[in-house]
Amino acid sequence: MSFYDAVVPAYLQMLNSLIGLLTKAEAHCAARKIDPGVMLGSRLFPDMLPLSKQIQLASDFAAKGCARLTHSELPSMPDTEKTFEELKQRLAKTIDYVKSFKPEQFAGAEAKDVTFPAGPDRTMTLKGQQFFSAVSLPNFYFHATTAHGIMRHNGVEIGKRDFLGAN
Amino acid sequence: MSFYDAVVPAYLQMLNSLIGLLTKAEAHCAARKIDPGVMLGSRLFPDMLPLSKQIQLASDFAAKGCARLTHSELPSMPDTEKTFEELKQRLAKTIDYVKSFKPEQFAGAEAKDVTFPAGPDRTMTLKGQQFFSAVSLPNFYFHATTAHGIMRHNGVEIGKRDFLGAN
Repeated sequence: MSFYDAVVPAYLQMLNSLIGLLTKAEAHCAARKIDPGVMLGSRLFPDMLPLSKQIQLASDFAAKGCARLTHSELPSMPDTEKTFEELKQRLAKTIDYVKSFKPEQFAGAEAKDVTFPAGPDRTMTLKGQQFFSAVSLPNFYFHATTAHGIMRHNGVEIGKRDFLGAN
Repeated sequence: MSFYDAVVPAYLQMLNSLIGLLTKAEAHCAARKIDPGVMLGSRLFPDMLPLSKQIQLASDFAAKGCARLTHSELPSMPDTEKTFEELKQRLAKTIDYVKSFKPEQFAGAEAKDVTFPAGPDRTMTLKGQQFFSAVSLPNFYFHATTAHGIMRHNGVEIGKRDFLGAN
């Protein structure tokens, strides 16, 4: 097993399942005549980020995680999405980007330094494995699961099997 | 880097941060005179699991993940916790259990078969890396993040930095 096998499939599994969750949420809005913008603007608490931003951040942590681990140029994805369709396209674009990496690019990456922003005016440097396990992946799952929680809280009929991509 | 380094620190980081989240939720209940049982019984939707069960499941996925990856006997932790204190003890016990594993026990585990229950009457077999990345870790983060979401939705002043263990 290579480090690539520890990194890339984990991001792809969840990016794909997020497309499935958004598809069910979109259908739920259509069936109940709910303004899609209301669902995408929903939050679990007023000072938390809304559903649309949770999706954008999950996308960012996957794409930038791969870029930082392979010392590639960071992808630029401005957060302009306002509809379910645009958010699903953002996820599809992120999937294509993550799939564009080759296993060779991750060779030895677990032991190489990764420097990343850790707040507005400071950076942190960790070994690749530690950056992946302690920073990138928990952030990625945090936003993916919070997106699931917002949709679930709003009555979308989804569950952990959808989250895991098993449905 | 060994497979141990990819597995054990990830579980420990979040088990520790869950203790921190529960400590803040407990203080919030005391300050606002909220019955702790109400907070621990809160859900994001009526057919979702309550906060106490999200913590128990996060504990289970960490402990059983380590056991299954090392082909050890599964630990028995009956879900009897009813208070913040008992749930924090459950997490502390899980941390001790996860810490009891030695790196040697994980040697080669990424390529060994792991058989685990995948529903009430069937099992699934995956290689260790795949079991960890596609099943154990996403389930673990799912329950940890959902626990965070329930507390956050109920007004506990926590955020992603607490979730990541940075506070």
